[in-house]
Amino acid sequence: MFMRVDKLQIELPLPKASTPNAAAALQELLGGKYGEMSTLGNYMFQSFNFRSKSKLRPFYSLVAAITAEEIGHVELVSNGVALLNNGPGDPEEGADISDAPFSDMQEIRLAASFLSNGGGAMPMNSNGASWNMDFVTTTGNVIFDLLHNFHLECGARLHKLRVYETMTEPAGREVCGYLLVRGGVHAHAYALAIKKLTGVEIEKMLPTPNILLDKIPECQKYLAEGSHRRLYRFSPDDYKEMAGIWGNGETALPGDPPGELEVVDGMPDGGKIPELEGTPSAFTPDYAPEEFYEIAAKLYKKSR
Amino acid sequence: MFMRVDKLQIELPLPKASTPNAAAALQELLGGKYGEMSTLGNYMFQSFNFRSKSKLRPFYSLVAAITAEEIGHVELVSNGVALLNNGPGDPEEGADISDAPFSDMQEIRLAASFLSNGGGAMPMNSNGASWNMDFVTTTGNVIFDLLHNFHLECGARLHKLRVYETMTEPAGREVCGYLLVRGGVHAHAYALAIKKLTGVEIEKMLPTPNILLDKIPECQKYLAEGSHRRLYRFSPDDYKEMAGIWGNGETALPGDPPGELEVVDGMPDGGKIPELEGTPSAFTPDYAPEEFYEIAAKLYKKSR
Amino acid sequence: MFMRVDKLQIELPLPKASTPNAAAALQELLGGKYGEMSTLGNYMFQSFNFRSKSKLRPFYSLVAAITAEEIGHVELVSNGVALLNNGPGDPEEGADISDAPFSDMQEIRLAASFLSNGGGAMPMNSNGASWNMDFVTTTGNVIFDLLHNFHLECGARLHKLRVYETMTEPAGREVCGYLLVRGGVHAHAYALAIKKLTGVEIEKMLPTPNILLDKIPECQKYLAEGSHRRLYRFSPDDYKEMAGIWGNGETALPGDPPGELEVVDGMPDGGKIPELEGTPSAFTPDYAPEEFYEIAAKLYKKSR
Amino acid sequence: MFMRVDKLQIELPLPKASTPNAAAALQELLGGKYGEMSTLGNYMFQSFNFRSKSKLRPFYSLVAAITAEEIGHVELVSNGVALLNNGPGDPEEGADISDAPFSDMQEIRLAASFLSNGGGAMPMNSNGASWNMDFVTTTGNVIFDLLHNFHLECGARLHKLRVYETMTEPAGREVCGYLLVRGGVHAHAYALAIKKLTGVEIEKMLPTPNILLDKIPECQKYLAEGSHRRLYRFSPDDYKEMAGIWGNGETALPGDPPGELEVVDGMPDGGKIPELEGTPSAFTPDYAPEEFYEIAAKLYKKSR
Amino acid sequence: MFMRVDKLQIELPLPKASTPNAAAALQELLGGKYGEMSTLGNYMFQSFNFRSKSKLRPFYSLVAAITAEEIGHVELVSNGVALLNNGPGDPEEGADISDAPFSDMQEIRLAASFLSNGGGAMPMNSNGASWNMDFVTTTGNVIFDLLHNFHLECGARLHKLRVYETMTEPAGREVCGYLLVRGGVHAHAYALAIKKLTGVEIEKMLPTPNILLDKIPECQKYLAEGSHRRLYRFSPDDYKEMAGIWGNGETALPGDPPGELEVVDGMPDGGKIPELEGTPSAFTPDYAPEEFYEIAAKLYKKSR
Amino acid sequence: MFMRVDKLQIELPLPKASTPNAAAALQELLGGKYGEMSTLGNYMFQSFNFRSKSKLRPFYSLVAAITAEEIGHVELVSNGVALLNNGPGDPEEGADISDAPFSDMQEIRLAASFLSNGGGAMPMNSNGASWNMDFVTTTGNVIFDLLHNFHLECGARLHKLRVYETMTEPAGREVCGYLLVRGGVHAHAYALAIKKLTGVEIEKMLPTPNILLDKIPECQKYLAEGSHRRLYRFSPDDYKEMAGIWGNGETALPGDPPGELEVVDGMPDGGKIPELEGTPSAFTPDYAPEEFYEIAAKLYKKSR
Repeated sequence: MFMRVDKLQIELPLPKASTPNAAAALQELLGGKYGEMSTLGNYMFQSFNFRSKSKLRPFYSLVAAITAEEIGHVELVSNGVALLNNGPGDPEEGADISDAPFSDMQEIRLAASFLSNGGGAMPMNSNGASWNMDFVTTTGNVIFDLLHNFHLECGARLHKLRVYETMTEPAGREVCGYLLVRGGVHAHAYALAIKKLTGVEIEKMLPTPNILLDKIPECQKYLAEGSHRRLYRFSPDDYKEMAGIWGNGETALPGDPPGELEVVDGMPDGGKIPELEGTPSAFTPDYAPEEFYEIAAKLYKKSR
Repeated sequence: MFMRVDKLQIELPLPKASTPNAAAALQELLGGKYGEMSTLGNYMFQSFNFRSKSKLRPFYSLVAAITAEEIGHVELVSNGVALLNNGPGDPEEGADISDAPFSDMQEIRLAASFLSNGGGAMPMNSNGASWNMDFVTTTGNVIFDLLHNFHLECGARLHKLRVYETMTEPAGREVCGYLLVRGGVHAHAYALAIKKLTGVEIEKMLPTPNILLDKIPECQKYLAEGSHRRLYRFSPDDYKEMAGIWGNGETALPGDPPGELEVVDGMPDGGKIPELEGTPSAFTPDYAPEEFYEIAAKLYKKSR
Repeated sequence: MFMRVDKLQIELPLPKASTPNAAAALQELLGGKYGEMSTLGNYMFQSFNFRSKSKLRPFYSLVAAITAEEIGHVELVSNGVALLNNGPGDPEEGADISDAPFSDMQEIRLAASFLSNGGGAMPMNSNGASWNMDFVTTTGNVIFDLLHNFHLECGARLHKLRVYETMTEPAGREVCGYLLVRGGVHAHAYALAIKKLTGVEIEKMLPTPNILLDKIPECQKYLAEGSHRRLYRFSPDDYKEMAGIWGNGETALPGDPPGELEVVDGMPDGGKIPELEGTPSAFTPDYAPEEFYEIAAKLYKKSR
Repeated sequence: MFMRVDKLQIELPLPKASTPNAAAALQELLGGKYGEMSTLGNYMFQSFNFRSKSKLRPFYSLVAAITAEEIGHVELVSNGVALLNNGPGDPEEGADISDAPFSDMQEIRLAASFLSNGGGAMPMNSNGASWNMDFVTTTGNVIFDLLHNFHLECGARLHKLRVYETMTEPAGREVCGYLLVRGGVHAHAYALAIKKLTGVEIEKMLPTPNILLDKIPECQKYLAEGSHRRLYRFSPDDYKEMAGIWGNGETALPGDPPGELEVVDGMPDGGKIPELEGTPSAFTPDYAPEEFYEIAAKLYKKSR
Repeated sequence: MFMRVDKLQIELPLPKASTPNAAAALQELLGGKYGEMSTLGNYMFQSFNFRSKSKLRPFYSLVAAITAEEIGHVELVSNGVALLNNGPGDPEEGADISDAPFSDMQEIRLAASFLSNGGGAMPMNSNGASWNMDFVTTTGNVIFDLLHNFHLECGARLHKLRVYETMTEPAGREVCGYLLVRGGVHAHAYALAIKKLTGVEIEKMLPTPNILLDKIPECQKYLAEGSHRRLYRFSPDDYKEMAGIWGNGETALPGDPPGELEVVDGMPDGGKIPELEGTPSAFTPDYAPEEFYEIAAKLYKKSR
Repeated sequence: MFMRVDKLQIELPLPKASTPNAAAALQELLGGKYGEMSTLGNYMFQSFNFRSKSKLRPFYSLVAAITAEEIGHVELVSNGVALLNNGPGDPEEGADISDAPFSDMQEIRLAASFLSNGGGAMPMNSNGASWNMDFVTTTGNVIFDLLHNFHLECGARLHKLRVYETMTEPAGREVCGYLLVRGGVHAHAYALAIKKLTGVEIEKMLPTPNILLDKIPECQKYLAEGSHRRLYRFSPDDYKEMAGIWGNGETALPGDPPGELEVVDGMPDGGKIPELEGTPSAFTPDYAPEEFYEIAAKLYKKSR
C-alpha cells in the first residue's frame, strides 16, 4: 500500500514567465526512456514481481523503498513541467476568447501540451512520444534486474545533465539539480547491491558520466546537507533491511563530500506544492470562476 | 510525496496451480484502457496538474487521495497476476534445463509473460498491448476531468465484472470482488463531486452496469464491514477536505447496505503480501539459490 | 458529406455457434495492414487531400466513390466479426454471474474482444494490433497514390484468400467471397487509371495472386450477377466522371465472366443487418433487460 | 451502407497564405483523442456492434445517424488542414527543384506533413501522434457507451474551444465555429438518451466547458438558422426513430436561441469542396501538368 | 558498407513438422526487447553515431564488427522461425482452397504469422508486439553505451535460456545453443571494454544468469571448437584494433573451456541456408508453380 | 551472413554549421514509411523468408543483394543526420556546464535528438515517430512482394525529392542525390523482375514521380560514371543469378545516359566515414577526454 503527503520533495522557485519549450525539454525526464516514469515503472513492477522476498529481503526492501521515492520524482518533474508551461499565473483574465488569445500556442514545440493538457504534464518524452511498457524490465532474475537498474540510473543521470545544460529557467534547473543528487544515490545503491551478490566493485564506475556534482551549483545545498549519503525508507515501519546494503560502513563516493551512508527513517522535509493559477480563458479550471470558487468554499467549510 | 507500507490492501488466497490464461485475463484490469494503471495515471497527473488547488481544495483532495489508493490497486492486481502465473511455488526445483522443462509455456496466451517477465505482471492489457498515455486525460478543466473520471470508473466496473465472470480461480475472484467495491466508491465520489459543482444528480446513474454487488459473493465481507461507505485519506495528515464531498449526510447508494458516507483516517488494515517462490530453473531469482540466499541472510542480520 | 442506409452490402448467414477464433482471423481483414480500415483510410484521406480535383475529375471521382464503398466494407467485416464472436444469440439468459459463466473466454485468442468489447469488432488485426496511420499513404502525387492503391488491393486480395482458407464458418466465408469480387473490381479500376495516365497495361498483372475466382464457390453468385464488372457511384448525383476510366469499352478480365465494365447509379440492393442478440449476463446491452426494453418501446412509439 | 455527396457540410473561406502551424493545431481536432476520427470511430464501431438493435431502435438510430455526420466532420477538418497547409495555390510554378524551393518546410512544426503528405491531412494529433484504437470504446453496454459518448463530446468541445483560441486564420476559425455548434447537438443528444434510460437529467451539465456559444462570432449564423436544434438523419429513409430521443417536446438548452428540437430529413445544404491547387514542384499532382491534364480532359469528355 | 554471403552462420536441422507456437516463442529472440533486432539496432546506430572514432578506434571497431555479426543473428533466428512455422515442406499441394485447407491456422498463437506473413519471420516479439526504436540506446557517451550493451547481452542471454527451455524442436534448440555461445562472447567483450576504460572488473559478473554453458548440450560443439574465445572481424580488412580489447592475454571465463581470447579474420564457415518449400495453396510463392518455375529457369540459364 | 567494410558508399562534404532541423528533415529518409529502414527491413525479411529459393534463384538473388546495399543506405543517411546535427566539431570545449551551454537545443524541432541521442541518428521519421514492423511487407508471394517493392521504391524516390527540395546543406543534398540514383536502379530492377514474371512492361511507369535526374546537379557525377546502370552484388561470390533480370540486353531508361545494364562484382569504391568530433560538454564521448584517449591509444598500440 501507498500513502500520500501533500508536499513536494523540494520547494521549487516560481517562474516569471511561461516557457513551454523548456517544459518540453523537461518532459524528457518525465516520460523518456531514461525518465522518472521509467525508474518508477521498473522498480514498481520489480517490487511487485519480486521472488523469494523473505529470503532476499535487503534487496527487496531496496527496490521497494526506492519505488516510493520515484513516485515523488514523477510528481516533482510534473510540477516542474506545469510551472514552466504556465508561468506565474494568468495574464489573460477576462480575455476575449474570440480574439485568438492563445495564438502563440501554435508555435510551441509540443502544441498538444496546451491544446489537450492545458499546460499540464503528461507521461511522454521531449518529442511527445508516449511512455509505455517497452521501458520496463522485470525478469524476476534479481542479479540481472539490479544490473538493469544500475544502467538505468546511469542513463538517467546523463539525460538529467543534458536537460540541465539546456535550462536557464530556475525551476527547471532546481529539478535537475535535486534529481542528480538523488539519482546518484540510487545508482550507488544498486551498485552496492550488485557488489554484495557478485563481489564486483561496480560502484567504481561512478560517476557515469564522468563528472562530479561539484560542478553543478544547484546540487550544492543538497550535498551540504548530506542528501547524497541518505536513503530514505519512505515508510512508517518497513524496509529497514536495506541497511544491509546501504550502510555497514560503506561511505560516500570519492569526490563527493565524505561520510558514511545511512538509511534514514521516513522521508525528506519537503517543500510546498506550487499553486498553479487557473486560466479561465483556457477553461482551467473553467470559465466562470466566481461561482465555481464559491461552491468550493462552502464545501471546504463543511469539511472542517 | 508518497510513502509505502509493506502490505497489500487485502489478503489474497494462494493458488493451487499455475493458470497463466487466468493471469492474462486479469491483465485487462491492470493495463487495459479501463484498468488500474489508467485510473492511477489519470488521477496522478490530474492531481499534479490541478489548477487553483487552494480554492478548489475539496476537489483536489479527492483526486489526490484516490491516487494513493490506486497505486495500491495496481499493486493488488499485479500480485494477483503473478500469483496466477506462478501458482503455489516451484515444482521444478533441480529441473534439467536441457530437457525443455517449460515446453508448456509455448501454449499460453501471452508467452512473453513467461519468456520475458518470468511470470510477473506488466502494464499491458489481456491481449498484451501496452498501457500508454492515450489512456490519460488531464485537461485542467475540473468539471470535465471529473466527468471523465466518473465515466472511467463506470467502465472499470464493467471490465471488472466481465473479468470476474471468466474466473474460477479464488485469487483472481478475490481481486475482482474487492476492486468492485472500491471502484464503486470512487464512481460514487466523482458523481458527488460533479453534483456539487453542477447540481446534476449523476450518482443516480449508479450502479452502471445495472447490477448490485449483492450478486457477487466475494463482495459481501467488504460490504459488511462498510467499505462501500468509506473513503480513506491514505495520508497521515492531508486530504481531509474531501469530507466536503464524501460525507455531509450523503449516504450509501440504494440497494447497498445503508449508512452514512465517511472519510476515514489512514488506510485499510490490509493483508500480507504473498511470497512468490522462486523457480531456479527459470532463473528466478537465479539458477543457484543456495549461496545467494546465504549472502542475503548475512546482510539481513547486519541490517538489524 | 456522407449518408447512411440501414443495410449491409450483402446478407450474411447467421452462425450456429460462437467461434471467437474465426472472428479473430476475420479481424485481419478489418484492421490489418491490408484490411478494410486501410483501404478506407487511404482512399478517404487521398480524396480529401486530392489536388487539382477539377482538372483530374475522373481520377478524383474514382477514389472518392470507392471510399464510400469501403466504409460499407468496414461495416460488413465488422458485422461478420461480431456474428462469429457471438453466435446465434444468448444461451446464458439468467446466468448466475458468480458462477464464472464465461470461463471459456480466458482461452480465446484475443481475450479482450470479450472482456472489453463484448464480442464486438475493433480496428485491429488478427494479432490484436491496432490500425493506425502507418497504414495510410497520401502523398498528393496522383500517379504514385494510384500505384499504391493498386498494390494495396492486390495485397488485400491475398489476405482475403488466406483468411478464407482458414474458414469453415459460412458467415466468414460469405464475407470473404463477396470482398474478393469487389476487391478485384477495385484493383482493376486502379490499374485502368494508371494505364490512362502512363500507358502501362498494368491490369495484365491481374489477378494477383494468380488464381481465378471461379475456384471460390462463394464468389459465383456475385460473378453471375456481374458484380465484377460494376462500379457503383454510391452517390445520388456525383462521381459520374469515373466512367472515363471504368467503361469506354473496357471489359472484364480474361477468365472472369465476360462483359463490358459499367458504372452503376446508386448502390447495391444490399441485405438485412443482422440482429445481435444481447447477452444480459455479459452486460450487453445491460443486465436488466425488461425495464430497458420497455423504455425503448415507449420512445419508439413516440418517434413514429 | 454509406453514400457520398460531393459537398462539404459548410463552405470554407479560402486562405490567403500557407500557415502550416495553424494546420498542425487543427490536426488536434482530426486525430487527437477528442478529435473527429475518435467520434467517428467510436460511433461507427458502436453502431456495428450494437446489441438488440430492434428492441433499442431509437438508441441505435441515434448512434448510427450521428456516425454518418461524423464522417463529414472528418472530411471538413481534413479540408481545413489541407487549406491551411497549402494556402491559396501555387507560387512555385516552374520552380527550380535544385534550388531548395521548400527550405522553409524544415522549420514547420510537423515537417512530415509536407515531406510525406504533400500538405494533406492525416489521422494524427497536433503533436504528430497517430490516431489508433486506444481511442475507441465499444463495450456493447448501451448505458455505458452512451455515457462515454457524452463525455467524449464534452471533451471534444473543450478541445475545439482551445484550438479556436489559437486561430487567427478564417478557414480554421470557421471549422471550429461550425463544429462547436454540431458537437453541442451531439452532447445534448447523448444526454437526452441517458436521461431516457436512467432518469438522470445529465443535460443540465451542459454546456461543458461552461461558456455559451454566443461568445463565438463564427457560431452565430449556425445558431441563427437553428442548427443547434437539428439532428439530421443523413439517410434517405432510415433512423427516424431517434425522434423518440431528440424531439418529443425537448427544447434547446437555456442560453442558446430557444425552440424545439427536431429531427431533420436528409442532410444540410452544404458548401463547395475547396479546390486545392497543385504544386508541380512538390510533385502534387505531379511534375509535368500539361500532358497530365490533357489526358484527364479526354477522359472527362468520354465519361459524359 | 556491408556485404552479404549466401550462408547462415550455422546449419540448422530441418523440422519434421510445422510447429507455429514454437516459432512464436522464437520470435522473442528476434523482435523482443532483448532480441537480435535490438542488439543489431543498438550496435548499428551506436557505430554510425560514434564520436571520436579515430581516437577511440578499439572501442569503435568492437561495436562496428559485432554489428555485422548481429545482422547474421537476425538472419539465423528468422530462418529458425520460418522453418518452425513451415515444417518440412508442402503437404497441401493441389489442395482445394475452397475446402478450408488452413483451418488449423485459426488456432495458432500469432495467427497473422500465417495470414499476413505466410509463415515468415517478422520483427516482433513472442506476443506479436513490434520492434521499435524504444529498444535503441545511442547516447554518444561511450562508457554509458558500453554499459548498456553489457546489460543488453546479459538480458539477451536470460531470454535465450528461457526460450530454449520451452523448445523440444531441434531447429529451435540449435538456434538457442549457438546464440548462447556467441552472446556470451559479446557480453564478455563489452565487459572487457568497460574494464579498459574504468578499471572495474565487471566481467566477473559473468555468466549472468548464473549457469554455465556446460549444462546445454547444443552448446558443446561450439565450445569444443573454441567459439567462446573468438571474435570474428566480419570484414576483409577492418576492425583489427578490437584486438586491444579482445586479446592481449585475456582468457576464457572460468568454467568455460580454457584458452586465450583471439580476434579471428573473416567470418565462421557457416552452413547452408535452408530451402523453404513453397506452399502453392497458401500462394507462396504463388498458385501456379509450373509456369512460374519455367520462367525462372530460363532467367537462371541466361544469367550464367 | 554479412560482412562490413569501414567505408561509406560515398564521401560526404563536411558541414560548416550545426543544422538540427535539416537533420530532422533527413530523418524522413531514415525511419519514415518510405525511408531506408523500410527498404532494408522489407528486403531483409523477404530474403530470409523467401520460398523456393533454388527454383526462383534470380529473384531471390535480386532481393538478397539489394538488402546488403540498403544497410549501407541506412548507414549513409545516419551519417548524414549526425553530421547535420553536429556540424564541424566542438565549439564548446571547456564549456561551463552550469551555464546552459545548450540552451538553443530547446528550440530544435526534435529536441530528444540532442537530449537523448547526443546528435546521433535514430530509426524515426522527420516527426520523431518510430520505425516499426507496420512498414514491413513479407507475404511469401513473390509477385506481390515484388510489386510492393516497386511501389516502395517509387514512394522512396518521391520522399527523397521532397527532402532534397528543403535542403541547402551540401551534406544533406549529397545524400539525396546519391540515393535518388540508387533508388532509381532498385525501382528499375523490381520492374524488370515483375516483367519477367508477368509480361507487363511496368518499367515504363518510370520515372515516378515524373522528373528526370538531369534536373538534380548532385546526381550528375553518379550518372556520368554509370551508377544508374549498375547493380552491385555486394558479395564476394554470390547473387550472380540476378543478371538474368538486370542485364540480358536491358538498357538504361529513356532520358537517362544510355547504355546496357550490368551486374557488377563487389561494391562501389566508397568514401571515408566522417569523423564526428566529440563534444565533452555534452558528454560525447565523455567529459574528461584526456585520460580517456590515453587509454584508447594504449589499446590501439597493443592491437597492432
